[in-house]
Amino acid sequence: MSLDSGRHLRADAARNVAQILRAARQIFIEQGPDAPLEAIARRAEVGPRTLYRHFPHKQDLVRAALELSVAEDLAPAIRRALAGEAWPGFVHLVDSAVELAFREHSLLAAARGIDSLTAELSTPFYDALGLLLRRAQDAGTTRDDLAPEDLPRFLGMLFSTLWNTDPTTDGWRRYLTILLDGMTTPTASTLPRAQPLNRSTRRTNR
Amino acid sequence: MSLDSGRHLRADAARNVAQILRAARQIFIEQGPDAPLEAIARRAEVGPRTLYRHFPHKQDLVRAALELSVAEDLAPAIRRALAGEAWPGFVHLVDSAVELAFREHSLLAAARGIDSLTAELSTPFYDALGLLLRRAQDAGTTRDDLAPEDLPRFLGMLFSTLWNTDPTTDGWRRYLTILLDGMTTPTASTLPRAQPLNRSTRRTNR
Repeated sequence: MSLDSGRHLRADAARNVAQILRAARQIFIEQGPDAPLEAIARRAEVGPRTLYRHFPHKQDLVRAALELSVAEDLAPAIRRALAGEAWPGFVHLVDSAVELAFREHSLLAAARGIDSLTAELSTPFYDALGLLLRRAQDAGTTRDDLAPEDLPRFLGMLFSTLWNTDPTTDGWRRYLTILLDGMTTPTASTLPRAQPLNRSTRRTNR
Repeated sequence: MSLDSGRHLRADAARNVAQILRAARQIFIEQGPDAPLEAIARRAEVGPRTLYRHFPHKQDLVRAALELSVAEDLAPAIRRALAGEAWPGFVHLVDSAVELAFREHSLLAAARGIDSLTAELSTPFYDALGLLLRRAQDAGTTRDDLAPEDLPRFLGMLFSTLWNTDPTTDGWRRYLTILLDGMTTPTASTLPRAQPLNRSTRRTNR
């Protein structure tokens, strides 16, 4: 094998992986979290064996597709938000994250079984959001009794509105607005103490 | 059989049913939605055959226990709320409903498979809540761009905070307070249009 044909093969493999990941995101959106890998291979115009060579288990494919989605959509939103003013950045970042989760809900559902993946991908997001919240509190834009533990719950509250809203609308933005108003109201009530997050309990009832 | 012993038998049967329903609520709280009927019979101190005679299917028992819970706890809260001032009544009723759902979460989980039951039991609740909201809007206490369609979503948002909060605390009240602040803020933002409820879509992703 010449040097040239080796390069050619590597470029081929990279193109295949990119096509497979793009196809995976499309197919999960169209067919839901249980979409068969064969449909993804067909859409990517690669043979099933090529797909299995790059992604031996469905979990590998889901993880790679989700990491790509975070790298392409969430990471730039985090960078943009941190570069600007605190409160507009906070609002923009929450909005981007819910929109992303809304678009990629099947991919997220497929990822639910993969241990620690969601936590791993969401840590940089919540770190950035917590920083923006503290800056907004220092600037006096946001009530100062909000805590970082509130943030995953706010996101959970917004996600909950997705399930009973027509998926073709952005109806959840209405509830984002009410929640943001509750976070910034000048006549804020005294809040009960923040409780630590406890993800392990009561999960069975979802 | 004498008239007296007939009465005696009916009184016995009524006592058995009451004991079974009380036991069912306790056992579901202690053991979760998949608790075996035998455990309920044992706690009620009746034989399994007595339990099956009154409730041939688990669904019958779950329905009766939930109806009892609504009659004993939710219906009085609705009556109290409607009798008083609009906004305190609204707040009290939401609080009571979330507390009830929190306490009876296993019963609700067991009821999830029973078609139309949840809708049937929640209609009087949402009707009352909608009436109180309109009264509070007429009184100028609440922002006037809220719609009845928002109410199930508000409850869903509060329920979502239960899943990652220590079940022995009332941590969800913190999020109720923020949401109520968002509903009453004097500097309210313009809300996006309310979307109709759409319970059938996206359910698979819960």
